[in-house]
Amino acid sequence: MPATRLAVRTEGEGAGLSQDASHLAARVARAVVGHDRLEITVRSAIPVGRGLGSSAALAVAAAAAAGSADPLGVAAAFDGHAENAAAAVLGGLVAATFVDGHPTACRLRLDPELAFVVVIPERVLPTEKARAVLPASVTFGDAVANLGRLGLLLGGLADGSQLIAAAGEDRLHQEVRTALFPEAPELLARLVAGGATTACWSGAGPSLLGICTSQKAAAAVREAGEAALAELGVAGAAVVLKPDLKGLVVGES
Amino acid sequence: MPATRLAVRTEGEGAGLSQDASHLAARVARAVVGHDRLEITVRSAIPVGRGLGSSAALAVAAAAAAGSADPLGVAAAFDGHAENAAAAVLGGLVAATFVDGHPTACRLRLDPELAFVVVIPERVLPTEKARAVLPASVTFGDAVANLGRLGLLLGGLADGSQLIAAAGEDRLHQEVRTALFPEAPELLARLVAGGATTACWSGAGPSLLGICTSQKAAAAVREAGEAALAELGVAGAAVVLKPDLKGLVVGES
Repeated sequence: MPATRLAVRTEGEGAGLSQDASHLAARVARAVVGHDRLEITVRSAIPVGRGLGSSAALAVAAAAAAGSADPLGVAAAFDGHAENAAAAVLGGLVAATFVDGHPTACRLRLDPELAFVVVIPERVLPTEKARAVLPASVTFGDAVANLGRLGLLLGGLADGSQLIAAAGEDRLHQEVRTALFPEAPELLARLVAGGATTACWSGAGPSLLGICTSQKAAAAVREAGEAALAELGVAGAAVVLKPDLKGLVVGES
Repeated sequence: MPATRLAVRTEGEGAGLSQDASHLAARVARAVVGHDRLEITVRSAIPVGRGLGSSAALAVAAAAAAGSADPLGVAAAFDGHAENAAAAVLGGLVAATFVDGHPTACRLRLDPELAFVVVIPERVLPTEKARAVLPASVTFGDAVANLGRLGLLLGGLADGSQLIAAAGEDRLHQEVRTALFPEAPELLARLVAGGATTACWSGAGPSLLGICTSQKAAAAVREAGEAALAELGVAGAAVVLKPDLKGLVVGES
């Protein structure tokens, strides 16, 4: 809300971060309204720096709260990627990418029977660091392999009865990022062994995602994830998360 | 059917090709039954060597006619790729790839309102030649760009109201293959100018595909395709094709 000078208050996840003009919410809001005479309260339930899209969700919320007519465009410009911002705006399963500089998204069917287990290590893996290890080029075969997996994955997410383990396979980023999180392959294997139909990194990590075809399976997979974290000595938690189907909601607090 | 020695008869498209043991149908059938004392009649409506999947469709049909319990596996092994064989077996829109050496497919939703225009040049572009020009490696950004487009494409094919031009964009194969078919970019542009929502190469080419959100649009796009072929001096035809939703049907002739 308008104020005589910038004030940023933070609650929940990310509350330990900066509370001044360098805070992402302040930078986004300033970009929208053109000044920083604002009072901003950020209340977040998304752990920061874990590959869960917290920055994009915050940027979308800040842009909308500041009155932007295009929270997706503002947030994607700040974040440099369209997919997290699009998911935060639209909710549900979305595909998104930049087209001629503009974030462009579409909705995809998500089987409501599917259930999602997210393993969230306590360690932070800054997205810039996770991006820095990506190679400049990849083999044609690896690029094609990921395209094939993406087709299987979207088919399986639309209809869980078609979901298979290979749908979560990746040849572009997980292996190189494993240097930043050596326990990841074993944790992924344990999610599948525990009953997840497939498993993969969540975004740039370090969070990991297990996709299950029922809530019952998800409960068991969550336990398997917690057990694996403990055995491997990785601080963190495994949680069952419901997909948010509403996306951005603007209202009075 | 069983015979005292191999006899191959061909009718329709591809009828000018070999009628002996080197014919793909003979090779596939021989691999299935273990001998070549067979009488084989091939009747095809799919032009050969145009990026329309004729080889895979033929291999699927030959494997099934020879009594194979796994026409997809047999055909994909002969063809080296899973996607055309999977489409021929399942019909409709499918995603398919090799997983641990096995062709693996899943069904995807295809909006029944969509209509498809295929421009089929008379020139043949053998798949081996079209594959030979592919680069050994691609930039990470290009690999990611195609993944983003694939998401938009599958979203648009499931729900035509979401289909956009960018969904058909490609950074992996079309540009390098244009050396083999220099008129392709202009033809693609003319399909879109004529009313196709998006357009792309059909497989390895030289056929081109325009995707339209109505039968009415498709009729206009077909005319635009025919006019462009004529203007550019490329022999060939533009046709409106309905997606086959049945896939493999085995029956008495």
